[in-house]
Amino acid sequence: MDGFSFVLSIDVRFRDLDAFGHVNNAVYLTYLESARMAWWFEVVGTRALGDVAMILARTEIDYRRQVRQDTRLDIGVRCVSMRRSSFVLAFRALDAASGETVAEARKVLVHYDFAADRSSPIPAPLRARIKAHDPDVREE
Amino acid sequence: MDGFSFVLSIDVRFRDLDAFGHVNNAVYLTYLESARMAWWFEVVGTRALGDVAMILARTEIDYRRQVRQDTRLDIGVRCVSMRRSSFVLAFRALDAASGETVAEARKVLVHYDFAADRSSPIPAPLRARIKAHDPDVREE
Amino acid sequence: MDGFSFVLSIDVRFRDLDAFGHVNNAVYLTYLESARMAWWFEVVGTRALGDVAMILARTEIDYRRQVRQDTRLDIGVRCVSMRRSSFVLAFRALDAASGETVAEARKVLVHYDFAADRSSPIPAPLRARIKAHDPDVREE
Amino acid sequence: MDGFSFVLSIDVRFRDLDAFGHVNNAVYLTYLESARMAWWFEVVGTRALGDVAMILARTEIDYRRQVRQDTRLDIGVRCVSMRRSSFVLAFRALDAASGETVAEARKVLVHYDFAADRSSPIPAPLRARIKAHDPDVREE
Repeated sequence: MDGFSFVLSIDVRFRDLDAFGHVNNAVYLTYLESARMAWWFEVVGTRALGDVAMILARTEIDYRRQVRQDTRLDIGVRCVSMRRSSFVLAFRALDAASGETVAEARKVLVHYDFAADRSSPIPAPLRARIKAHDPDVREE
Repeated sequence: MDGFSFVLSIDVRFRDLDAFGHVNNAVYLTYLESARMAWWFEVVGTRALGDVAMILARTEIDYRRQVRQDTRLDIGVRCVSMRRSSFVLAFRALDAASGETVAEARKVLVHYDFAADRSSPIPAPLRARIKAHDPDVREE
Repeated sequence: MDGFSFVLSIDVRFRDLDAFGHVNNAVYLTYLESARMAWWFEVVGTRALGDVAMILARTEIDYRRQVRQDTRLDIGVRCVSMRRSSFVLAFRALDAASGETVAEARKVLVHYDFAADRSSPIPAPLRARIKAHDPDVREE
Repeated sequence: MDGFSFVLSIDVRFRDLDAFGHVNNAVYLTYLESARMAWWFEVVGTRALGDVAMILARTEIDYRRQVRQDTRLDIGVRCVSMRRSSFVLAFRALDAASGETVAEARKVLVHYDFAADRSSPIPAPLRARIKAHDPDVREE
């Protein structure tokens, strides 16, 4: 996907639809979450849930199109900026068959120490890995 | 809740928690949705799903605190502005026991004709009902 | 509820409905789970997730009626039998307004040591607490 | 999958995990549902939700193994028996990588006329299609 270093494909499930027959608005965040976790695992190079060190502070999402059953979505993720203890991810969700954008989103993630239950500065090795993965990331 | 004309109480379920032991970020949108539907039903004065005429265009949400099991949340909703075919709802989610804010959100809703599958102007009677319910709403 | 020592009330959420406009079949299990966790916490006398020592081996559920929006359900739970390392819970879900049964279920739970990742015998104090809470439980 | 005429592959999502870090028991039913809908669409030869004419009466599920993140499951479905207005589906869920069975289930489905809101006899053409798809089905 143009401009995205990482893409996860997700198949819509019947349960993702709501009483209006389209994918429910909250489920888009479940898709973004799966993509974000997969991005994280690729960046840090391990897949242990216990090593996930980010917590969500903010989500902005624009719903562009309704999504129906039998759809495969491609979810693009990239890191657009980093501060001392937080970073911003941008997302685009495409209908894999038509290529149409169905949603765009931005999330603010805080680097988080779950054991201590508080935010913590992004350590230099992680910062380097993010920059290596997403070279256009801004450091603010 | 101060400044909110409508409040819905929601009990956190075990299933709302994720592998980090806190309420999952997507589930907050499920809470907001329940509150938004209840607000709609109160404003329009009927409870028929077939009469719901809004579709979500955008969500912004700030996660202020993690929410754990055994929590009751109070979700405040109010309409803050209306345009020709869209309106903005503001939300605040409080821990009912402590009164602490756990999340704040804004949503842009489009008045939608599901039968025709397109947006449509907010009809005058609905506009009047929203103004009666949320007198501080701005018309833009 | 007749014959049930423990009852949890649950409000149906909009998200619980599926594309057929009724509560989705999987969501009934989410309701049963909330009731089962609340039963466990009442029986053991603490509410710590880390102390939950049961894992689900089997579910049987009969769906008696469709459930729509705006419904409050009462979920009854009782322990009907115990073996060395497992126990059986029976459930009934009623429409709180009409009193009609919407589902009945049985679950086989294994007493489980999550730290060791294996089943373990039900300790005598827990066995005594379950018998005190549900006196009609059969020991097999 | 041995003995199953239809198999759907499903990727576990992060949201499918619960606070115990394994796939939640209710989510297995969501997987079975996706497989059952796909089986239905293949049998009847159309994919319209409005043509789905089955409602769930009963589920029995045995949970054989915990499922963790990063798992692809293969869900096998077959029709094992038909009565006048109902039929039974059998399911097996395998870890696609290891081939281990993670769950087995049976469901009783009632042929349902959603417009009339009542059960209805399985029409001869559908009965013939099911028999053509699952030749070992018993007629009771």
